[in-house]
Amino acid sequence: MNTPNMLTDLIEHLGKLPGLGEKSAERIAFSLLKAPKEFTQSLCKSIANLKNIKYCPRCFNFTADNGMCSICDNIYRDKSVICVVEEISDLWVLEQTGAYKGLYHVLGGRIAPLENTGPDNLTIRQLLEKIRNGNGIREVILATNHTFEGDATAAYIQDKLRGAKVELSRLARGIPSGNKIETVSRLILTDALRDRKMFNPRNS
Amino acid sequence: MNTPNMLTDLIEHLGKLPGLGEKSAERIAFSLLKAPKEFTQSLCKSIANLKNIKYCPRCFNFTADNGMCSICDNIYRDKSVICVVEEISDLWVLEQTGAYKGLYHVLGGRIAPLENTGPDNLTIRQLLEKIRNGNGIREVILATNHTFEGDATAAYIQDKLRGAKVELSRLARGIPSGNKIETVSRLILTDALRDRKMFNPRNS
Repeated sequence: MNTPNMLTDLIEHLGKLPGLGEKSAERIAFSLLKAPKEFTQSLCKSIANLKNIKYCPRCFNFTADNGMCSICDNIYRDKSVICVVEEISDLWVLEQTGAYKGLYHVLGGRIAPLENTGPDNLTIRQLLEKIRNGNGIREVILATNHTFEGDATAAYIQDKLRGAKVELSRLARGIPSGNKIETVSRLILTDALRDRKMFNPRNS
Repeated sequence: MNTPNMLTDLIEHLGKLPGLGEKSAERIAFSLLKAPKEFTQSLCKSIANLKNIKYCPRCFNFTADNGMCSICDNIYRDKSVICVVEEISDLWVLEQTGAYKGLYHVLGGRIAPLENTGPDNLTIRQLLEKIRNGNGIREVILATNHTFEGDATAAYIQDKLRGAKVELSRLARGIPSGNKIETVSRLILTDALRDRKMFNPRNS
């Protein structure tokens, strides 16, 4: 079928977005075709707007203006703890837990030689400077992903911080809440056994 | 977290597209943020291009120019059969089977009083005219969806064509290929029993 190229062109573009296969890209393209002109126009405008987004000079999170982001600027956040994440999207989900009250540092990726990403392509230098200059930093939580590359990135930073007067930690590995033991992988179970949490019988 | 409004604005827009929940809209927004400027620009361009898409005056499929679409214009298609579908996306998937060689007629929706869509909002009038004027049409396949509204739309057209000298048919209902009997709904099983296909013992 010789469908007009405009539509196949759009489907191809949409298919490159994460999580969208050919079928879902088709569905979205057809829905855009039926959508009111106002919607498609304002969608395009909000995509185009992305180029105006600015980054915090301290933690590389988004910032609304040229100054520091709302987290770094918040006097109620604990400035002695820095949580190091790969991407702003990680910061975003950690924020949504409401469980963390310290600051962040966004690396902008992970060390991945196969993708030509080395330490110099990330904000590791700025992180190390910030820590070495003191700034009252007491703990650094390495919250890179629990993947091969995330682990390697954490190990690299850990190595560079050898001798620095900060506590280093890594997010807990284990069985995800709500999961049954019989459904998780051997790797997860091995982690959960190794990092098991001891009850303290003397306090009971 | 006071995320810049630009990003939440984009996530809201994306979340209105079919099949995208909040999580997937977030993922796409973050990926657009990291995508090369060339990609986001050409994505916007292909969305904006949609307004230039033209429709075939005969079957209401897309057409590349102001004339008839590539299916109506194809001398190898069987012009005596018309397959009536709700949306162009239905035509699209039927074409992908390669099993149909006739023409189509796109209604542009279904009769749905709750959505304020009556017969006059669809291309039913044009379909009836085309059939009544002859045009060598021998069979009309009512390929509206097997849903309450699709069935009602097919019934409406069937009623309007009472007395017309065309054969009317509806796509087969039954158990989807690859599905187990124990997994399909009672409604599907009832259809499959009622429309069961007889072996012909005399021919064997």
